[in-house]
Amino acid sequence: MGNFVPTERTQVHRLPKRGVYSREEVYRILDEGLVCHVGFIVEGKPVVIPTGYGRRGDTLYIHGSAASRMLQAIGTGADVCITVTLLDGLVLARSAFHHSMNYRSVVIFGTATRVDDPATKLEALDIFTEHIAPGRWRDVRHPTAKELQATMVVSIPLNEVSAKIRTGPPIDDAEDYTLPIWAGVVPLKLTLGAALPDERLPKGIAIPKYVANYTRKGS
Amino acid sequence: MGNFVPTERTQVHRLPKRGVYSREEVYRILDEGLVCHVGFIVEGKPVVIPTGYGRRGDTLYIHGSAASRMLQAIGTGADVCITVTLLDGLVLARSAFHHSMNYRSVVIFGTATRVDDPATKLEALDIFTEHIAPGRWRDVRHPTAKELQATMVVSIPLNEVSAKIRTGPPIDDAEDYTLPIWAGVVPLKLTLGAALPDERLPKGIAIPKYVANYTRKGS
Repeated sequence: MGNFVPTERTQVHRLPKRGVYSREEVYRILDEGLVCHVGFIVEGKPVVIPTGYGRRGDTLYIHGSAASRMLQAIGTGADVCITVTLLDGLVLARSAFHHSMNYRSVVIFGTATRVDDPATKLEALDIFTEHIAPGRWRDVRHPTAKELQATMVVSIPLNEVSAKIRTGPPIDDAEDYTLPIWAGVVPLKLTLGAALPDERLPKGIAIPKYVANYTRKGS
Repeated sequence: MGNFVPTERTQVHRLPKRGVYSREEVYRILDEGLVCHVGFIVEGKPVVIPTGYGRRGDTLYIHGSAASRMLQAIGTGADVCITVTLLDGLVLARSAFHHSMNYRSVVIFGTATRVDDPATKLEALDIFTEHIAPGRWRDVRHPTAKELQATMVVSIPLNEVSAKIRTGPPIDDAEDYTLPIWAGVVPLKLTLGAALPDERLPKGIAIPKYVANYTRKGS
């Protein structure tokens, strides 16, 4: 699938070995994540808002109420920075200085464009729903024209993109390895509990397999 | 502990019942989270970077290498927006339109100030280490003067702050409740796996209790 071409903004300068530009790896992180943090500028100041998202090919979609201040702010071609972060572990080193976290993150720079075409909008809502729970779209009541109108969708092309990944044990200073201090990694994982059926569910509606056996890609 | 006073930026306009200004609730979210997303402006464009953090009272600290481009950009009093998001569940409604997530998030607006005083800097490193693993600071090798110099710490006062919280089942349109579609919540939780001791650990060093019995506050 090739690599993204690093730019001045996406080139990882410090600890360059953590920088990853492979589309495959970027897609994997985006497809496993559930929430992104959208950065944009309002009256000259930065704002960062968490929201769901979906991806198809080299396009990221976010959506929300047509009344959303975030979407109104970015839907007219504003610059955005969208970041997705997965936490994989606490890295406990022998020295306070070398404590760290294992993580995988993706940073996307670009401009957002409002999606107005109803067919593309509907496709984006399919993508969001499948991103939350793959298999879900064919089961649910699809959006009405009125709901589509009340929903704003924006797309961001995946052009200027990089990932950053840290894995593995703590890296301590050579002379610290003999210290009698426990060191290691505590793995972290976003896990899914048993599904809680809505109390208002009519009797006899079984939990779909894609809910009962739910896992996130890559996890 | 009182409430934060909403401002134009922190007042939750849409779905105002999700807005929370209680210090206690904001502290709980910040103390449970492990990573924040820092938004700032570089050459007129937004940038969002994930990083660890720590809190004491009404001050949030972030830190990193003195060579960090993020810290260099924000350490001179720049405007920042710092957001912490905890995911609590996937909300599967009967309609695609009402799919949602249960979450708790905190958004902080302010300016960052570089911490130069060595004693405050050391205290901030204590706070970071304890934020990752409460109990850890007393066990580890403390920072040397050289390490303190190589570390940049910035503080952000918690003044202009709000939380946003969604809990509970899906909220569907009245007429959709009779549809034969499964609906409910899939709980999400960041869980900790069994600790992986560093392979280079000398024999006979037991896992500390605070690692073996690790839980995040509030989880």
